[in-house]
Amino acid sequence: MSASMDIRTKSLSKPVNVAQYLFTRLYQIGIRSVHGLPGDYNLVALDYLPECNLKWVGSVNELNASYAADGYARVKGISALITTFGVGELSAINGIAGAYSEMVPVVHIVGCPSTISQRNGMLLHHTLGNGDFNVFADMSASVSCAVAKLNDPAEVAAQIDHTLRECYIKSRPVYIMLPSDVVEDQVEGARLDTEIDLSIVENEPEREDYVVDLILKTLHSSKKAVVLADACAIRHRAVPELTAFLDKTNLPVFVTPMGKSAVDETKENYGGVYAGDASHPDVKALVEGADVVLAVGGLKSDFNTAGFSYKTSQLNTIDLHSDHCVVRYSEYPGVKMGGVLRKVTERLDMSKLSVQKIAHVGPQAVAEKLEGADQIIDQKWFWPRVSDFLKENDIVVTETGTANFGIWDTKFPKGVTGLNQVLWGSIGWAVGACQGAALGAKDAGSDRRTILFEGDGSFQLTAQEVSTMMRHDLNIILFVLCNDGYTIERFIHGEEAEYNDVVEWKYKELVTVFGGSEQRTKKYRVNNKGELDALLNDQDFNDRKGMRFVEVVMDRMDAPNSLRLTAEASAKNNARRE
Amino acid sequence: MSASMDIRTKSLSKPVNVAQYLFTRLYQIGIRSVHGLPGDYNLVALDYLPECNLKWVGSVNELNASYAADGYARVKGISALITTFGVGELSAINGIAGAYSEMVPVVHIVGCPSTISQRNGMLLHHTLGNGDFNVFADMSASVSCAVAKLNDPAEVAAQIDHTLRECYIKSRPVYIMLPSDVVEDQVEGARLDTEIDLSIVENEPEREDYVVDLILKTLHSSKKAVVLADACAIRHRAVPELTAFLDKTNLPVFVTPMGKSAVDETKENYGGVYAGDASHPDVKALVEGADVVLAVGGLKSDFNTAGFSYKTSQLNTIDLHSDHCVVRYSEYPGVKMGGVLRKVTERLDMSKLSVQKIAHVGPQAVAEKLEGADQIIDQKWFWPRVSDFLKENDIVVTETGTANFGIWDTKFPKGVTGLNQVLWGSIGWAVGACQGAALGAKDAGSDRRTILFEGDGSFQLTAQEVSTMMRHDLNIILFVLCNDGYTIERFIHGEEAEYNDVVEWKYKELVTVFGGSEQRTKKYRVNNKGELDALLNDQDFNDRKGMRFVEVVMDRMDAPNSLRLTAEASAKNNARRE
Ligand SMILES: Cc1ncc(C[n+]2csc(CCOP(=O)(O)OP(=O)(O)O)c2C)c(N)n1
Ligand SMILES: Cc1ncc(C[n+]2csc(CCOP(=O)(O)OP(=O)(O)O)c2C)c(N)n1
Ligand SMILES: [Mg+2]
Ligand SMILES: [Mg+2]
Repeated sequence: MSASMDIRTKSLSKPVNVAQYLFTRLYQIGIRSVHGLPGDYNLVALDYLPECNLKWVGSVNELNASYAADGYARVKGISALITTFGVGELSAINGIAGAYSEMVPVVHIVGCPSTISQRNGMLLHHTLGNGDFNVFADMSASVSCAVAKLNDPAEVAAQIDHTLRECYIKSRPVYIMLPSDVVEDQVEGARLDTEIDLSIVENEPEREDYVVDLILKTLHSSKKAVVLADACAIRHRAVPELTAFLDKTNLPVFVTPMGKSAVDETKENYGGVYAGDASHPDVKALVEGADVVLAVGGLKSDFNTAGFSYKTSQLNTIDLHSDHCVVRYSEYPGVKMGGVLRKVTERLDMSKLSVQKIAHVGPQAVAEKLEGADQIIDQKWFWPRVSDFLKENDIVVTETGTANFGIWDTKFPKGVTGLNQVLWGSIGWAVGACQGAALGAKDAGSDRRTILFEGDGSFQLTAQEVSTMMRHDLNIILFVLCNDGYTIERFIHGEEAEYNDVVEWKYKELVTVFGGSEQRTKKYRVNNKGELDALLNDQDFNDRKGMRFVEVVMDRMDAPNSLRLTAEASAKNNARRE
Repeated sequence: MSASMDIRTKSLSKPVNVAQYLFTRLYQIGIRSVHGLPGDYNLVALDYLPECNLKWVGSVNELNASYAADGYARVKGISALITTFGVGELSAINGIAGAYSEMVPVVHIVGCPSTISQRNGMLLHHTLGNGDFNVFADMSASVSCAVAKLNDPAEVAAQIDHTLRECYIKSRPVYIMLPSDVVEDQVEGARLDTEIDLSIVENEPEREDYVVDLILKTLHSSKKAVVLADACAIRHRAVPELTAFLDKTNLPVFVTPMGKSAVDETKENYGGVYAGDASHPDVKALVEGADVVLAVGGLKSDFNTAGFSYKTSQLNTIDLHSDHCVVRYSEYPGVKMGGVLRKVTERLDMSKLSVQKIAHVGPQAVAEKLEGADQIIDQKWFWPRVSDFLKENDIVVTETGTANFGIWDTKFPKGVTGLNQVLWGSIGWAVGACQGAALGAKDAGSDRRTILFEGDGSFQLTAQEVSTMMRHDLNIILFVLCNDGYTIERFIHGEEAEYNDVVEWKYKELVTVFGGSEQRTKKYRVNNKGELDALLNDQDFNDRKGMRFVEVVMDRMDAPNSLRLTAEASAKNNARRE
């Protein structure tokens, strides 16, 4: 240790080491469990988790861990992932990219070779053999909203505070590179007495008022206004403001596929999922016939809009975003949706607002009466049937595939949280995310159930995450839709192609392989509507704790209609030649 | 299609489309099976695999697929991996980085959005939502020796030829980005009549002669010369030249951990594994006491040298590399080992060479006589015992962990290929690589057995690859070393730490879960030396085809001595403060 470092260290009023500082900060911002895998460059750091009250998840691999961190953050607010240099972090990078794309705050901490080894350009394991110790950080930089290399103990505390704030505020992953020799360097612990400020900067009042007035005028003069809730409302934490607005106005409200669960679906003014041409005809008519569409947190990606098939006009649209607003064609950079929505709600004159009644649109809470109990379970029947099974505050995770479309037809009880990855769409994500979400719920002290609808093909990518679910005894109901392969792809291209086939596994037996106990786990296979119906009504199935693993047998060429329409649009776009 | 493209297309003498061109080239350079997963951006391309005589592996996830492509290339010479944009390619990038680090030629083809979508910056699934379509290619660029974006049909054929040549010659991955609308564009098929030139440029004769003379002089005047074969001799295909040199000289030869299987271990002049302080004392004495060390393809990484613990002097060293040579301190850039070795062998005057006899060094072919059949299997007994079990031409894959060190003490029969990932060291790699290696052997028309020694902890990361092994009915013997977690890490740091524990799985039952048939698969668990001994002697176990899955029960704090020594060096290096 150099002399100058000694002087700095001696001047610290409450010395703590870097690991303690970082982990205490993680705890303060709400993290209770940390995902990841050990590796020799991070082992010493991991020793400090318990004393900082952080639980180590002990993930099965880094990709799963990153998916789980994503799910954890969506439920608990923010999450952390610790991996080892090169091999670990790159295994996780697809999950981090997904969190970046989908705007989920994940703190990725990478234990790396010591600053001395780096300076000396040593030929170490987990390197490319070319002495470049920054190459992986550079790769991560494009999927992180901030990067911190903790090389200089004098800077470390400020770097950590800044980076964690960025992560939360921007709701995107950050990358923290922690050299093995810095882990136990001393930094100023007195800083920890003040928590990191995670509040967002308010809008400039005059500018905000200007936008609010315009919106009020537009709403007051509308006859058939509707609200469309989308992903960014959730990710940028504007749901409370949105809810207050809806509670006051009772305006008809729709959600996009990515916005599902942003609003209370049990209310009369909830109309269902809008996604352009793939929407239910009544929904389509209402949204596209509106004279004002107030779009909150819109994210118009291909699969969130059924291939860009909105037939709404920008002349009728108010777009509220996390960092700007647009009213018709007028843009207001820097004006954030939260503040605007709060003021609009406050100032809105209900006597001037026309509110349409939209009863009987959208998914029905109760499935059609069960006829043909011995028939194979079809997607058309399945998803409305699930509505009845769900309970308040359930967490519902759906995988890219038929599940992500089918869920449009499921009506969520109050307080349900829906998780999907419609933009990034990495299959296998939902299994990891389900584990993380369930753990997040547990860490929040709730006993919410987490329910996963998973494709058989997707399941194979990350199946071992079921082991972690059971390791932490999480309350999970896992439905694997056994339809003999990549059904969604069959609808896009190659219906009979070999590349859309998967090996048929005995999926539910994994519960046993991964050490599930008789008491805390149970396995099921349902072959027809009657069996599924009975299972969903079964008291023990509903109320028992731990893992319930269900194989649901379905036809290989059965898909929700919304998927058929979106798949067609996607195939067309891939083939477009001008 | 634009008018100018029409003219170009009409002028083609044997039009083929881009997929056909690319896949025909893959076939020509020796690829027979293609690893990867489908995704909507690559589906149309995949349709062309069968007509180009390429088999689709149908991998379970992209990371495993990339590991498998790595293993395939190590056995078959080169390999290909097809993934989909963003989600697929990033899932694979750790495997590609490993191939880069370890110098393995893998052609990574990524199906991506159409050039039109890219130009229009569309908000598509599998993007970061920011309109950047180059971000993933840029990430891959740092782990690829060439990148080709196939955007312009007029350039495509030349791009493909150049990129594939680079891949093979540099023995590193390349990245090919194939937009969905370019797949069926027409290019000149007449080019396919001439195969790509994969030969390396010869050394400049005068320069080469100069180096050869110097080496001859050094060898002729030596008394105790030894040869040290390392990784780059294998990766840069200098093994034939090395073998010819050894056959002529009978000089004592040693291998590094990464160089194991580069030389015939049944010959009398084979001395064993040299890795500095972790070597067998006799090996250490011989190598470090030599007056000349001819190091062929040296790669002095930490784990390949037991923490940089060589006690050899550069004044006694001749280093032959793929792109330069060093004699003592004189460097010869651009002079490649193959040509040099060929000439040295030709011109060496055996009457002037002193050749030491080194009988009885290195691992013994026959294990100590079995005593204590009911004792737990220990690493000290296990690895020499394996020597006897191996057959000529087996492929032996070892995972990072105790296995990578234990295998030093196994004597390979003639023709055995040893695969490891000592430099990159990504756990789980060996399971994927084993599948790829076995498939490579099958594609080469041989019935070589592929034998995997896998850690229980590592296995969990990529376990589903066993499904792919069985899908292709590969001849694999898979030993899982069940020692209750991350033993190698316990020796580095945290012997009793929770983070070094894993969930205990019923490993072998995965064979059943993944649909293994009674006839083509068999499961075993061996609890003591006697049981293992009997199994290894069992005729059916040895000769049956398909999958043999063996759980080997071992103690959690049992490790090869070489591992203990390397782990200490590693822990010390991680903690070093100046
Ligand atoms: C990591 C990754 N690899 C490949 C894909 C391409 N892909 C999208 S959906 C899908 C098939 C999903 O099949 P399954 O989970 O069985 O769903 P379902 O049959 O219900 O449609 C694939 C391969 C992807 N999105 N992500
Ligand atoms: C992808 C990846 N993640 C983490 C590590 C760190 N690591 C190196 S060895 C090891 C443990 C291996 O344990 P196991 O396979 O059981 O081997 P053994 O017990 O025989 O030593 C870990 C976690 C790594 N090398 N690669
Ligand atoms: Mg399926
Ligand atoms: Mg182990």
